[in-house]
Amino acid sequence: MAYRETEKVRQRKQEARNRILECAYACVAEGGFRSAQITAVASRAGIATGTIYRYFDSKEELFAEIFRLATQREVDKVAEALAGAGPAAARLEAALRRFADRALRGPVMAWALIAEPVDPRVETERLQYRRAYADLFEKAIKEGIADNSIPAQDARLSSTCLVGAIAESLVGPLSPGHLEMTRNGNGNPQAVTDKSLVDTIIHFCMQGLTGIRR
Amino acid sequence: MAYRETEKVRQRKQEARNRILECAYACVAEGGFRSAQITAVASRAGIATGTIYRYFDSKEELFAEIFRLATQREVDKVAEALAGAGPAAARLEAALRRFADRALRGPVMAWALIAEPVDPRVETERLQYRRAYADLFEKAIKEGIADNSIPAQDARLSSTCLVGAIAESLVGPLSPGHLEMTRNGNGNPQAVTDKSLVDTIIHFCMQGLTGIRR
Repeated sequence: MAYRETEKVRQRKQEARNRILECAYACVAEGGFRSAQITAVASRAGIATGTIYRYFDSKEELFAEIFRLATQREVDKVAEALAGAGPAAARLEAALRRFADRALRGPVMAWALIAEPVDPRVETERLQYRRAYADLFEKAIKEGIADNSIPAQDARLSSTCLVGAIAESLVGPLSPGHLEMTRNGNGNPQAVTDKSLVDTIIHFCMQGLTGIRR
Repeated sequence: MAYRETEKVRQRKQEARNRILECAYACVAEGGFRSAQITAVASRAGIATGTIYRYFDSKEELFAEIFRLATQREVDKVAEALAGAGPAAARLEAALRRFADRALRGPVMAWALIAEPVDPRVETERLQYRRAYADLFEKAIKEGIADNSIPAQDARLSSTCLVGAIAESLVGPLSPGHLEMTRNGNGNPQAVTDKSLVDTIIHFCMQGLTGIRR
């Protein structure tokens, strides 16, 4: 029966680890990485601070994992939008729109993922994920060149222009100072729902890509 | 004569501080913020490590100042290019080109300023300087709308799209991994001189702005 015991322990450890991740995720979604302290995560999870260090070597390791989990979720949504049918230009536009819409609906987490000044170890994850987005866009641009919905161009460079344009243009609207002005009665930042904002950003991106005035 | 003595001391201190800044600047230009350690700065300046802390409270404070000095220099060059005569669209194009050209000529420093994962205090400076570039571009876009060289649009948002597109598209070409491949015989990273690279980035930016196929 020794094996079963071990399996049970393993499972309990996995559950505790997941619970810490869930609570850390919630903390970051509420106030960004800076306000998400280990003590806050521990108190939310109802465990001692020291217990967290049994599962994660350091605060930075925990937050790097939160960054990966949260960003991978967004990357998957973009990939999903790109995977549809139809000309690549339209799929790319839908993917960019989904990225921006989702960011504005969860502005604190989006700010944390896109622009919040973070520990260099988390920043290194950020650079890698920007490449993940660029890889997806590059593939779509190449498909667009093939199906004639996008003019011939350096798909790699254009994909990074897209990543930069959409991320940087969201930094202002998502930033804590800007959100402060839009907080609702409960003191929670409201989702930013300015449709013209997204339209403007998407227009810039699609014009940059296609050279077709919109 | 007490006043004169004090003045001399003040001047000597100023000189020592400038010397530290110069040496720290040179270290960052050689290997980025990560490789620029206080011991390396001190040894280059021919002083004891402790002496640096008489002038700067911390390593982060010193490097935040280097970041400000180096970035302000680039902001000034962009402002200079924008200040010329002629239609705003052409001046904006020249300014974007100057930004990219200068980055590719000093790739290690440019990588350190644009993308290197750094301490959050330095990262905060980075966010502020991105706003400084966006402010310059916004002004030029408004001038372009007025002189009919740029179509009517949200100048603020478009300016941030420009900042993001040009910075992000340079991250790959400037990154240490990429530079490693182009190191010359002396082991120094060579300036990246791919003109088509800059052309492609500028095309995307100007198309995004004007919707005119190039």
